[in-house]
Parts: sequence; structure tokens; C-alpha cells
Amino acid sequence: MSELIRVDRDRLWGDLMRLAQIGAYDDVPTGLRGVRRLALTDEDAQARRQVIEWMREAGLVVRIDRIGNVYGRRAGTDDSLPCVLMGSHIDTVTSGGAFDGTLGVLGGIEVVRALNDRGLSTLRPIEVGFFTEEEGVRFGVDMLGSAVTAGRLALEYAHKLTDDEGASVADELIRTGFDGQEAERRPVPFAYIECHIEQGPILAAAGVDVGVVTGVQGISWQRLVLRGAAAHAGTTPIEHRQDAGVAAAAVILELRRMCESGRFGQLRGTVGKLSIEPGSTNVVPSGATMTIDMRNPDDVAMMAAEAALAAFVAELPGKYGVTGSLERMAKTFTVRFDADVRALIAATADDLGLPYVHAMSGAGHDAQEIAAICPTAMIFVAGENGGISHTPREYSNPTACGNGADLLANSIFRLAQASRLAQAS
Amino acid sequence: MSELIRVDRDRLWGDLMRLAQIGAYDDVPTGLRGVRRLALTDEDAQARRQVIEWMREAGLVVRIDRIGNVYGRRAGTDDSLPCVLMGSHIDTVTSGGAFDGTLGVLGGIEVVRALNDRGLSTLRPIEVGFFTEEEGVRFGVDMLGSAVTAGRLALEYAHKLTDDEGASVADELIRTGFDGQEAERRPVPFAYIECHIEQGPILAAAGVDVGVVTGVQGISWQRLVLRGAAAHAGTTPIEHRQDAGVAAAAVILELRRMCESGRFGQLRGTVGKLSIEPGSTNVVPSGATMTIDMRNPDDVAMMAAEAALAAFVAELPGKYGVTGSLERMAKTFTVRFDADVRALIAATADDLGLPYVHAMSGAGHDAQEIAAICPTAMIFVAGENGGISHTPREYSNPTACGNGADLLANSIFRLAQASRLAQAS
Repeated sequence: MSELIRVDRDRLWGDLMRLAQIGAYDDVPTGLRGVRRLALTDEDAQARRQVIEWMREAGLVVRIDRIGNVYGRRAGTDDSLPCVLMGSHIDTVTSGGAFDGTLGVLGGIEVVRALNDRGLSTLRPIEVGFFTEEEGVRFGVDMLGSAVTAGRLALEYAHKLTDDEGASVADELIRTGFDGQEAERRPVPFAYIECHIEQGPILAAAGVDVGVVTGVQGISWQRLVLRGAAAHAGTTPIEHRQDAGVAAAAVILELRRMCESGRFGQLRGTVGKLSIEPGSTNVVPSGATMTIDMRNPDDVAMMAAEAALAAFVAELPGKYGVTGSLERMAKTFTVRFDADVRALIAATADDLGLPYVHAMSGAGHDAQEIAAICPTAMIFVAGENGGISHTPREYSNPTACGNGADLLANSIFRLAQASRLAQAS
Repeated sequence: MSELIRVDRDRLWGDLMRLAQIGAYDDVPTGLRGVRRLALTDEDAQARRQVIEWMREAGLVVRIDRIGNVYGRRAGTDDSLPCVLMGSHIDTVTSGGAFDGTLGVLGGIEVVRALNDRGLSTLRPIEVGFFTEEEGVRFGVDMLGSAVTAGRLALEYAHKLTDDEGASVADELIRTGFDGQEAERRPVPFAYIECHIEQGPILAAAGVDVGVVTGVQGISWQRLVLRGAAAHAGTTPIEHRQDAGVAAAAVILELRRMCESGRFGQLRGTVGKLSIEPGSTNVVPSGATMTIDMRNPDDVAMMAAEAALAAFVAELPGKYGVTGSLERMAKTFTVRFDADVRALIAATADDLGLPYVHAMSGAGHDAQEIAAICPTAMIFVAGENGGISHTPREYSNPTACGNGADLLANSIFRLAQASRLAQAS
């Protein structure tokens, strides 16, 4: 075993804090400073330019592909070999924090700097990447950039997606200057490791800073459009109403009941987006549109949950005089990460003296897409406040972030020196 | 009994259709052409200028008061006597039709024209008015202009109300040029009659075109703000969530149950406006804001309903970890219209050979405000499609509108000739 690499924790922390200034806003509910950097907005573009500057300062050669994914490359001593890839995303949700996604990207750049500082070259090239629209908040499809790269979604389909104002991914790539020319189906990496905050309570409960991620639970995103009839709030008898808002409320509570019932395994259901029309105090709603986010580590239980929800929607006309149509926005099945890469990460943690646990991810990640094209695994970093995320309360302390980056650095270095995967760990 | 006056039905219908062009839009849910003319918008201002032009063409002298209410006056032979007032409003809801409010205003102008055509003068002056922001859709308080005129709301309070974009009533009055100089507490009329579409099914079910309105049921408008905590949709266990969207859904369904229970008389409850924050597919909602519209012809039952709703909101922290705060937006008690004016309208309908019914109004009207300062009643005109309103499907046919205007013309004429109210009928 070669000597262990240590990243510069202060340098990494400084970058995390600096990037969080881009898209920063005052979050009223929490009283905290949050980050709002939706994909391909001006804020995201500014953050992209900053990260690319840091990549170049670290000696990386940057290229951008046709879906706006950005890769920075450090040559290997045999540069014809498939690279070792690390990365994540830098877009955020509407009320996000400083760590979700960025830790894996800035951590990756810090890994390169640590290799540079030590004068270490590697057999294989190393790349750090970030993927477009991981959150799916703006254009409605999460893991968009990595899904296109992995071939699950067609480039043309992705380019045509639009945000709530009708702006398309293609137009926004051009507008922000991230309409790259590289092929979106990139050369297949030797392996991919994504370092990411856990966004859950398991690591903190176990008293560890890092986790080896076994896989990602399945995700189902659907859009439900309800159509009733507008009517006067004062004169229309209750029994004559076709109130789309009431039907929407019934669906939300049914989803909650489904989660609590235990009939669908460890189902988690969320309605995070809801609008009702026409939206006047004294008008019975004629329409409602909502998103339905379901997660399940068991694909069969997920299918049963989807079927139960569809059956409930089918009963709405009889119950409330409201029709509902469910439309699939996104669907991913449960992904199991590569056993060899996981074993390598676990062995490296042992060498570093870092206690860890194995954990399944409750959130979706670019890694589940990249897993389709090369051996992949993830490193989780613990968060405080129960690992809360997608809020400005999201917080992983400098020690946890540093330990995660150390684990990433040594895992990547070992992979980059290996001619075969099994040989690495 | 003098000869009966007949309005020009085609002229009235033409005006109704022409005014509906201002603020017209294509309504997607119904596939119909609707009217969207929120108070003090550019569309409303354009409609105001059109109606004032018609008033002046009919020989009326126009004045505008400090809350933007507009009155057109026809002198009486004794112009020092209190006037007879008719009118309504010309603002609409977001997805409105051509008749709500406008029938009483354009019908009033048509009454004046009919008197002019016949060369009829009256003892008392006659005025036609329209009141600002009757719908309450833009600034959150309905019957705003008439409530200020009647002294229920202070001018300063009304001026400071703002719309969702923060624009104030005072600023919008100035911007549209309707910041009149007349005192908002106008000279007390001898009587007021408002002709308005029924917005309900009673008249059509009885097979009549017109109704004598006995009063208006009480209205309670409240705003409910719910505060939970944002969290990641994939990683946050259901039992740890403080989901403001789920709490909002529970309130909506509870309101529905209250209406259906019979425990609160003829309670009608509507949540017409609802927004959730931050509004991302994969984020558990941290906040929700909704309006709650309750109507009840029984003031005691209304109070009980408000108390029951408040009790339910008080249980939300324990049930869902979400706090709720209810804020009063508007409250009116049940109003009974003046017996003499009602009797006059009924007797006039008999003289015209128009069958009618007595009916209580389910909707709020300017007349319930004006009733506080002078003897007041209303004439209802039947609508088709079950009297549906606040939608482009709203439709009262030319015959019903003409019959309503005839009834208005002769009732107003008799009042304008009377020295005392009891003498009129």
C-alpha cells in the first residue's frame, strides 16, 4: 500500500463556501442564507464558470458536451486508457444548501490538487465532471445530463424539455454559453465514484462521517392534471361542484395514507408542486396540477404503489366530478452499485482509519445513471440536523467533508493506478 | 299606473357583448371566450372609459370619488331631492363572463336611455354607478368600493391594500386615472336597486326570468398560512416530515366535510386560492397559503363554522408538525333587504306580467353594503347552465336580460317619482 493522500480541508471548505455565494438568497422560513441555483439560470452559469476556472487552475483540460455536462481531464501516463471519473452536479433546488452535489465536484477538484501537490501522476487519466439539471426542478426531469450521457434519454428529447416559462433546455444551453460540441455519449470510463452528502440520518445515527453506498432506491415522478369546473363559491351547492382543489387534496392525503399503511414497503411519497386554477378566492377551482414524487427501494412495491395511486385517481370522477390524468415525468428503478468499486472504497476507508457504514441512497444521483455504462459506486458524507437537505439548514461540517474527500482521493488514486478493477482494492 | 317603460333589448345586448370584448381571453378549460378584467388593471380602466363614454352619450353627468367609484347623474325636476341610485360593478374574476356586474351597470344606462327616448323626466335625480373591486380578486377585499362608500371600511385602509405584486389600490387608482376627487361618503340616496344575474339555479328551476332578492347570506373570507419545514423528498422518513402541503390538503377536506355534515346549516366552503412553497417536485413543502371562503345564510351557524375550522387548524401542529395562522380578510353578516323596495319591485313585476320568485343571494353584492345607508333591494336575472357564474360558461339570454332591465326601469321610475318610499309601490 502506497502512502495515503490527504486533501487540503481548508481549501475544499473555502471553495464550498465561495460557490454557495453564487445564487445565495435570504430564506424567510428558516432565517438562513440559502442557495437558489436552478439549472441553466444565470446563477448556474456563473457557478459553472467559477468551477471551470478552478478546474483550469488545477491543470485540468475542460470540455463541454452537447447537453452541457462539463468534464475536466488530467492526463494519465497511458492516456489511451479509459479514465477514472468522479463528479456530481452544481445545480440546486429552489431552496437549497451549499453541499448537495457541489461536494462531489469541488471535492473532485481538490483531489486533483492533492495529487498535483504531491507530484503524483497516475497510469490512467482522471476526470472530474458535473452534470446538467440533476435536480430536475427547472425542466422536470432529474439526472437529466447524466441520463443523456448514459443513453437512457435521447439528446433531442432533453433539448426540447421546457421550464414553466416555456424556455427550452436547448435555448438555455445556448443562452448561457454551455451548448458544448462534445458528443454527449462520452468515452466509457474505467469506473465512476460520486462523493455526495447523505441527505439522510443513517450516518449520523451510526456516528460515522462516511458511508459506502450500496445503491439507489427507485424513483417515480408523475404529473397529475385534474379537471373540474369553475363555479361561483357563494351560489354553487356543494353537491353540484366539480372542485379540482378538493380532488387534489384527496390525492395528497391518499398518498400520505399509502406511505403510512406499510402496504407498499418503504414507500415515500411527496407532492412538492401544486397549482390550482383559476386561483380566485371566490371561484371553485376548475383545475389543479401537481407533481407526485414516489421513492421505494423495492421495485415491485413501487409498481404496486403506482397502480394503487392510479386506481384512486380513476375514482375521482365518481367521488368529486373531477377527471385526472397521470403523466410520467421520470422513472428510475432501484440500482445496485458495483461490488468491486464498493469493496475498494470500503478497503480504502479501513486504510484511512475511517469508520463507515453501508447505506442505500434515498435520493436520486447521477451515479445511478452512470452505473449503466461503467462500474460505479458512491461515497456518502454525513450531514447534521438529521441529514436534512434541500433546505438552507443542510450542513455537513468541515471534518466530515474532509474525510469524504480523503476517501475519494485515495479510492480514485488506486483505481487510476490499476490495470484491472479487481486488482485495485 | 302610468304606461310601462320598455328598454331597447337589442341595444342593451349589444353593449353587454361590446364590453365583454374588453379583457376577453381564450379560456382553455372551457374552450370559450372569457373575460378577465381585474379591478384597476389596464383592461378594467379601458372598460371604465367605455362605460363613462356611454354614460355621457346618455346625457349623464359623470363624477368619480376617491375610491374610484363612478356615478353618472340625470337631474330631477327637484334636483335637491335625494337621488334614486342603480348600479353594480364592471370588474370580473380571473375567468369571468359577460354578465356578472355589467348587467346592472349597462342595464342602468339603458334605463336612462329609455327614459330619454320617451322624453320622461322624474321628480328625483337618477344616478347609475359602478363600484371599484367588487370581486375582491385583485386586492383581497370584495365589495371594496361600496364598503368604503357605505362607511364600513376606511378610505385609508382601502388605499393601502396591495395585490400579489405589491401594487396598492391608491397607486393603481392614480395609474389608471381613476383617483377621483369626490368624497367617498356620497350623498345618501333615496333608494338603491341593483340588477344582477342570479349566479345560481333557483330562478331557472322555477321557470322565471327575474327574482326579487330578499337578502344576501353572510360571507367570511380568511387567509390561512401554514408553516412546516422543507426536506428532501427521497430521504426524509414520513414520520419526520412537517409537510405544509399535506396539512393544507387536510384543511381543504375538513372544510368539505363541514359543509356536507349539516352541522353548520347551509354552509358553503371553498378554497379557491392555494400556493405551496418552495414548489419543487422533490422537496417536502415548507409552507402553504390558502384562502377560505365560507358563506352562510345563518350568522350563528357561520360563527360555529369559523370556530370549528379554527379548532381544526389548532390541531395541525400535533397531527402534522405544521403550524397554521388564520387571518381575517373580509366578513359580512347576513343582510335583509328593505321590505318597501322589495314590495315595489314585486308589484312592478306583476304590472309587467313577469313571473318571479323571492330568493336569497348566495353571492356577495355591492347592494349589501349600500343597504347600510339607504333602502335597498336587488333584482335577479336568471342564468342558463344552472346559473353558473365566475366562468366563461356564465350566460343569461337576451330575453332574461331585457326582462330584468324592464323591471329595473319601471321600479326606478316609480321610485324617482315618489316623495315617500311607501308611496312608490
